[in-house]
Amino acid sequence: MDNLKINEYRDLINNSLSDIYTSGPESLTKPIDYVLKGGGKRLRPILTLITAESCGAKVKASLPAALSVEILHNFTLVHDDIMDEDDVRHNQPTVHEKWDVGVAILTGDAMLSIALKMLQKMNPNSLEAMAVFVEGLLAVCEGQALDKEFESDNFVTIDQYIKMIDLKTGYLLGLSAELGALVADVDKQIRIALRDFARLIGRAFQVQDDMLEIFSDSQNMGKSLKSDIILEKKTYLMIQAKSKFPKEIESAIEIAKNDFTDGIQIIRKLMLETGIKQDAEKFIENTINQANSCLMNLAVDHRNLMCFSDLIMKRNN
Amino acid sequence: MDNLKINEYRDLINNSLSDIYTSGPESLTKPIDYVLKGGGKRLRPILTLITAESCGAKVKASLPAALSVEILHNFTLVHDDIMDEDDVRHNQPTVHEKWDVGVAILTGDAMLSIALKMLQKMNPNSLEAMAVFVEGLLAVCEGQALDKEFESDNFVTIDQYIKMIDLKTGYLLGLSAELGALVADVDKQIRIALRDFARLIGRAFQVQDDMLEIFSDSQNMGKSLKSDIILEKKTYLMIQAKSKFPKEIESAIEIAKNDFTDGIQIIRKLMLETGIKQDAEKFIENTINQANSCLMNLAVDHRNLMCFSDLIMKRNN
Repeated sequence: MDNLKINEYRDLINNSLSDIYTSGPESLTKPIDYVLKGGGKRLRPILTLITAESCGAKVKASLPAALSVEILHNFTLVHDDIMDEDDVRHNQPTVHEKWDVGVAILTGDAMLSIALKMLQKMNPNSLEAMAVFVEGLLAVCEGQALDKEFESDNFVTIDQYIKMIDLKTGYLLGLSAELGALVADVDKQIRIALRDFARLIGRAFQVQDDMLEIFSDSQNMGKSLKSDIILEKKTYLMIQAKSKFPKEIESAIEIAKNDFTDGIQIIRKLMLETGIKQDAEKFIENTINQANSCLMNLAVDHRNLMCFSDLIMKRNN
Repeated sequence: MDNLKINEYRDLINNSLSDIYTSGPESLTKPIDYVLKGGGKRLRPILTLITAESCGAKVKASLPAALSVEILHNFTLVHDDIMDEDDVRHNQPTVHEKWDVGVAILTGDAMLSIALKMLQKMNPNSLEAMAVFVEGLLAVCEGQALDKEFESDNFVTIDQYIKMIDLKTGYLLGLSAELGALVADVDKQIRIALRDFARLIGRAFQVQDDMLEIFSDSQNMGKSLKSDIILEKKTYLMIQAKSKFPKEIESAIEIAKNDFTDGIQIIRKLMLETGIKQDAEKFIENTINQANSCLMNLAVDHRNLMCFSDLIMKRNN
């Protein structure tokens, strides 16, 4: 699968996302349009299209499911940004910053119903797709709830953390693949294998995100890192560091609160010298291998799906 | 239909609403339990049960749909209370007051997915029920959006107002009846008539609410009235008053901002002496008659539905 095809898929999704909801009150149509045109990598709907196509379905037939997944994802971003007090998303002010919290809550709620309406256009297996979607929605809420609970919990284990990111990130990627499989109407066993593949990709993706956040020099990453350090947000690397070197990491966090650049340099050095970064890299690699093994012996053309894992892991921000 | 039966239905709903979601993170299970046990008249799910029974379905079969409607209704309350900055609901602190805004947003989101999961248990017509539910969800969001837009719009007409309350209140009652009809699997024509009946009851209910808010002496009503007057929230009676006696009503609102008791007395007197209260009463009566006429010539035992309109209109708070 070449980048050209990915770009073609992305363009198709971007074009289809414009003017998706134009008939309602302005205080909904405007922010919804703003969010859906706000950009993003569109990884989830691309996964839906790739999965459906790999299983033999036409791209056109899987578009409603793909759009539904992307709208669901954006719903979570709009609401999470309020909770996390993030003021920038995709290089533009978040909805609650540009409008207000009330508009942002309502924008998310309405987007959810638009995503569900979109899913009803899916054919066949629309009822099954709704069930999968609703399950995914609850998982995302539970993941976000755990993420917030962890902020004030100093004893989060790696297992608890993995469960949280599975719910918050993995299930939504799993849902994206599963809906693609449902469009293609493949056997349940194949569908579940594709879902599990995507869930594991999601897990690897999140831990990679944790690593990039600390080690990337990109400005965007740096910005969210600062608030995450201050909120003591749990990440794969920070949990490992806190469990193995509690004193050192706590003193580095205190330094970061006063002088961010100094503090983060100490944290990076510690993670490199103690092998915490290397452990995380190993975990990501193992998880990707585990994901790819879900595709083996599957009566599906899995070449493009393997390329998808490459695509997702090669990003650097 | 006697009160005993209504109470029996209400008890059934209250019992079924306890322990509906116990397996998730505490920051979700606790507030969801708190909201669902927080009380309320349960009018919407009672309407679902009555409609289903009137159409020949068993109460037990219509329970999942009834619960789904009540959870959807409570989702709107949790999110609306954040937007409207209301701190008390059903005589207890609202979720964002007792916990925080983040918890309240997530509680609402999770409740929505629980309501949808509940609906999947409905049989037959589950897919059709989902479509009706999702349409109702969007209507409720649009109604709330218009309601907020109207706060800063001094030229809202009665027609615009009726459209807003239909979306915000009427459609949810319509949905409650429609799901009951879907459980009973009646003809579409009957289902739509029952939906329209309930939508009109919802319209009458809301205008009656507007009237009670100004003329009731109950403490609860008085409390929300105060914030509504200050926010210049549009109601049926205030729109009429502002359009016919703009100067008098504006001066009364100014007085109310400083001395609430004085201001509200002037507003009440004006509405009584100019016939605005009587007009609203006439509108409610006409709307109820219009609603009841939807039931005529319908192959449905509509006695209990007529009693439902009585029940809803006889309340005094």
